[in-house]
Amino acid sequence: MNVLALAGSLRAASINAAFCRAASRLAPPGLHIARYPDLGVLPLFNPDLEIAPPRLVAQFRAAIGDADALILASPEYAHGISGVMKNALDWLVSYERFVAKPVAVVNTSPRARHAYESLLEVLKTMSATLVQEASITVPLLGHCSTEEQMVSNPAIAAQIRAALTALHEFVSLGSRQGPSFPVGAQ
Amino acid sequence: MNVLALAGSLRAASINAAFCRAASRLAPPGLHIARYPDLGVLPLFNPDLEIAPPRLVAQFRAAIGDADALILASPEYAHGISGVMKNALDWLVSYERFVAKPVAVVNTSPRARHAYESLLEVLKTMSATLVQEASITVPLLGHCSTEEQMVSNPAIAAQIRAALTALHEFVSLGSRQGPSFPVGAQ
Repeated sequence: MNVLALAGSLRAASINAAFCRAASRLAPPGLHIARYPDLGVLPLFNPDLEIAPPRLVAQFRAAIGDADALILASPEYAHGISGVMKNALDWLVSYERFVAKPVAVVNTSPRARHAYESLLEVLKTMSATLVQEASITVPLLGHCSTEEQMVSNPAIAAQIRAALTALHEFVSLGSRQGPSFPVGAQ
Repeated sequence: MNVLALAGSLRAASINAAFCRAASRLAPPGLHIARYPDLGVLPLFNPDLEIAPPRLVAQFRAAIGDADALILASPEYAHGISGVMKNALDWLVSYERFVAKPVAVVNTSPRARHAYESLLEVLKTMSATLVQEASITVPLLGHCSTEEQMVSNPAIAAQIRAALTALHEFVSLGSRQGPSFPVGAQ
């Protein structure tokens, strides 16, 4: 099972990017998590280009379409979704292979309520399938900001493993139930 | 008085861009409105680049800093602020000349409640000075989508003129009260 993880910050020391790398190392057997290398190279969204999307957008869409599930980890900037993450999602709004895609949304800052709720609203509007059991708030900010710290902190690592196991089980269940699920489930 | 108008869509036939051009033609005497040519050329926001921002970002910031007020007209994509607009704002979060900048936020689609409210929350968090009297909802979508239609529709043109006059008066009042206003006003 292949999961694609997207970090909504381009900062080299981004906690959200570190979370994606830590998740890759903590994934249960059978679950492979790859981080999408860089949302920062995508062009800014232009509806006029949707008919013949730029090469980087086509590659991004294909990677999304091919993934069994997504993990989104994104910072809050000024009480809003980061432009980096929203721009990536804007390119997926009319992409039919995004519809019903299982998505786990991870909040690495418990105080960042506005952006997290906005992101859930956007994903719902895009007809994603939110995997509740795998969508966790992890209190990383301030004391657990690197990949190594996340992997070596027993409580944090256990919380991440539990979320990934839930994601694995959700997608496995969907696969066994055939193509009628989760399409149209919400 | 110089006002900079930002459209949150890159679509050639964007209603929001058309609104900015129409506003420029409908501006009262003494108010000059220029549309920022293209938010689409800005790089995606990276906090690591804030110390020495890319040339295009430095130019954008200077244009914002030099403006007496801003007009923001932005579409709603999947119940969220467009990535184009949010990315532009992300570059301004830590830019001190944005603080207390008078801003009129225009909603060209009365049904687009989520993105408009998110935009107000972001601007409040960024310590902009929202000019309530100039922040209007204009029912353009569906029947009045070009610059020419907006300028030639008496009711729409009157509504836009009234908003621009209110913006003009607000900024004029602030200028007369000196530098202590509106800095720190909210």
